[in-house]
Amino acid sequence: MSLIQPRTLKGFRDYLPSVMIPREQMMQTAREVFRSFGFAPIDTPVLEHLEILTGKGSDETDRQIYRFEDNGGRDVGMRFDLTVPLARFAAQHINTLGTPFKRYHIAPVWRGENPQAGRYREFVQCDFDTIGTESVLADIEAVAVINNLLATIGFDAFTISINNRVILSGLLEQLGLADKAVPVLRSLDKLGKIGREKTAAEMCRVAEIEASQADAVLALAECDGDAESVFAQLPEITGGNEKAAEGIDRLTQIYRGALASGVPSSRLRVDVSIARGLDYYTGVIFETTLDQLPGIGSVCSGGRYDNLAGLYTKQHLPGIGSSLGLDRLLAAMEELQLLPDASTPAPVFVAFFDRDFRDDYLQLASKLRTAGIGVEVYPDAKKLGVQLKYASQKGFAAAVIAGGNEWNENRCQVKTLASRESSEVSYTHENPTQLIESLQQIISTAK
Amino acid sequence: MSLIQPRTLKGFRDYLPSVMIPREQMMQTAREVFRSFGFAPIDTPVLEHLEILTGKGSDETDRQIYRFEDNGGRDVGMRFDLTVPLARFAAQHINTLGTPFKRYHIAPVWRGENPQAGRYREFVQCDFDTIGTESVLADIEAVAVINNLLATIGFDAFTISINNRVILSGLLEQLGLADKAVPVLRSLDKLGKIGREKTAAEMCRVAEIEASQADAVLALAECDGDAESVFAQLPEITGGNEKAAEGIDRLTQIYRGALASGVPSSRLRVDVSIARGLDYYTGVIFETTLDQLPGIGSVCSGGRYDNLAGLYTKQHLPGIGSSLGLDRLLAAMEELQLLPDASTPAPVFVAFFDRDFRDDYLQLASKLRTAGIGVEVYPDAKKLGVQLKYASQKGFAAAVIAGGNEWNENRCQVKTLASRESSEVSYTHENPTQLIESLQQIISTAK
Repeated sequence: MSLIQPRTLKGFRDYLPSVMIPREQMMQTAREVFRSFGFAPIDTPVLEHLEILTGKGSDETDRQIYRFEDNGGRDVGMRFDLTVPLARFAAQHINTLGTPFKRYHIAPVWRGENPQAGRYREFVQCDFDTIGTESVLADIEAVAVINNLLATIGFDAFTISINNRVILSGLLEQLGLADKAVPVLRSLDKLGKIGREKTAAEMCRVAEIEASQADAVLALAECDGDAESVFAQLPEITGGNEKAAEGIDRLTQIYRGALASGVPSSRLRVDVSIARGLDYYTGVIFETTLDQLPGIGSVCSGGRYDNLAGLYTKQHLPGIGSSLGLDRLLAAMEELQLLPDASTPAPVFVAFFDRDFRDDYLQLASKLRTAGIGVEVYPDAKKLGVQLKYASQKGFAAAVIAGGNEWNENRCQVKTLASRESSEVSYTHENPTQLIESLQQIISTAK
Repeated sequence: MSLIQPRTLKGFRDYLPSVMIPREQMMQTAREVFRSFGFAPIDTPVLEHLEILTGKGSDETDRQIYRFEDNGGRDVGMRFDLTVPLARFAAQHINTLGTPFKRYHIAPVWRGENPQAGRYREFVQCDFDTIGTESVLADIEAVAVINNLLATIGFDAFTISINNRVILSGLLEQLGLADKAVPVLRSLDKLGKIGREKTAAEMCRVAEIEASQADAVLALAECDGDAESVFAQLPEITGGNEKAAEGIDRLTQIYRGALASGVPSSRLRVDVSIARGLDYYTGVIFETTLDQLPGIGSVCSGGRYDNLAGLYTKQHLPGIGSSLGLDRLLAAMEELQLLPDASTPAPVFVAFFDRDFRDDYLQLASKLRTAGIGVEVYPDAKKLGVQLKYASQKGFAAAVIAGGNEWNENRCQVKTLASRESSEVSYTHENPTQLIESLQQIISTAK
């Protein structure tokens, strides 16, 4: 019989333990942070009726959907994000769930786009949203969640940039440009890339506005400095517009509330130039960059939206949400060498040295597990060198070694695998304390 | 614009928080137990080349695969189990990974079968396998993992039944029926349902064997009693066959090794009548039943196989694995009322009572989170009754209530939501200790 070539599809990948261990750890950290704010998990099917998925999407996302006709003749598709399923879910269940509804959802999505370096057709999204309230408290909380997420994952130096789209809307209203928000924003988005002069020229041309109007918009976008000084400058820059004033007030509340919620001011930046997409967000928006790797872009972005599920229900559902860029963060941690180099999730290795004592190795391992220590027992009584090589390669912190002599004398050897140092400790199944303490010390040092 | 009806596909379901919270908890427990034995996580794509999926499957599974042609003209399918992807994965990566390779994989699979009560077209599988060793130690360990899984999830009374297929093979060899294993096993599988007499008759008819041969097979299947007495009877029942003797010896080692690994003898049963499928397992097999709900069938089953990935590689990869029936267990826990009745993952609710103190509520919540206590702050300063009703319905353990008077006098009210009892504790942002201790006590009592 000829063999079938074992391979994954183009644009897809396997996760081997060395990558999957920190990835799973990151998802677990995210879950714990979400839960600590009262966000609850949900799950939705990977497959949806195609009309649900194509209802709102742009032509581009529509093209990227994996779609087919199922055996029952239904047009179905695989979800391409977690926002559309959330909208469908909320429309369907919000009367059961009640509001405010706070959910998180960590799950894979699929997009049939042409794969580029580091981008795959299957990737995990990690979203949290608060639905059914317009309260500024929910906005503040979203910033606090982002701070706790990144800090708990292991980052120290990062910047959460916040803005309120309403401020620019107010200015545009003031300038008589309320109907030109889209082309103005589109041009403004290029400020970082092409500079002030070219942006102003493009804005005048594309949005058909005066140079003085473009100047006023750019003056807003360039308003910089520490948060309180920005808040002080903004009323004048927005010409005393009332809507802008409301937006400034709300942004001020979000900033100060985030500080009260424990977000260090060093990690918070008011940046009135960020816009984030053109037609979805309607209030506060945020982006998060790693100070050491600004080039990888935002690792956690989101904002407030007016109406989540208008395609599926007449119920008005405002909300605020954000998405953690899990795979982007993993790549960053790899680059910053923050990832542990291990392909075992257990810290202790027990060598299977003398086959006559097999059940003793098993019992020893059981004692360690009861004490909360993860243990792998090598399954075959191979040469010790082979076993220790395996243990080192996998990244165990410590090895426990005992032969017949040791067992008969109620002791065993403990080896720190990184330093190759060994020590002897006493051990019996009745009294494993010394071994446990010795291993706990090695494990905590290795971390 | 007309609305799109928000609905899931037939045979699919949403997971609302009240179900998703314990489901996620169960997955997390499973991960922790797997890791404590050194099993490492992996992940594989949901979509595979169709030829990978259809390589081994029966006609029935082939029909159930969700399959389509992707935009690149490739025939693809969604995985219908985690074993086929593991085989493909192992064939592709085993030289990088080395052996023994111990992995777990918790992920959804899809089968387009006609949905029945309690069965869905999308469900999660939870598998663990040790590949690349024939050691009995790996067999023993699998039993210990099952024990720790169910005990840690929260079950006390369950039975892990173990058998070794080699014993029956030895007997069949002894009886000159080695080539009739499949029809004999197929008939034997019905023993529990149709009784001894009808099973014997069917075995004679279907497998074309003598009544005395059927009697000998049934004598094996009916060998019962405590484990050590079964081991004592088996050599005679198998007529001293050498292969059977090896099988008995190995089963004895597994049983005794499991005891050494900390599995209580009350949870272990040697049951030489179980067979589990016809052509996959070749050595030890096990099933696990809940003593209070035997009718729901096995909640964790598996066994030893000779060669995992023969379709994709010439490398011989023996192994042992098992699968936890996550959704079946969840249903059982619901029936046994072992599930918490909460749709919040955070235990503490903070009422938003006086809008002037918004940042104080946020700061209080932040202090509690730092102490490891999950907190949800209500986002809107609605009437207290509305907020407390929300808190009770969601299943929070405690509510913290503070109005202007309380804030000014450095105190707050703590309410146990189940008993409606309230008490006053002192609180300042600088010294939150009394509040933290009071809440920790309520939370630990509520569990």
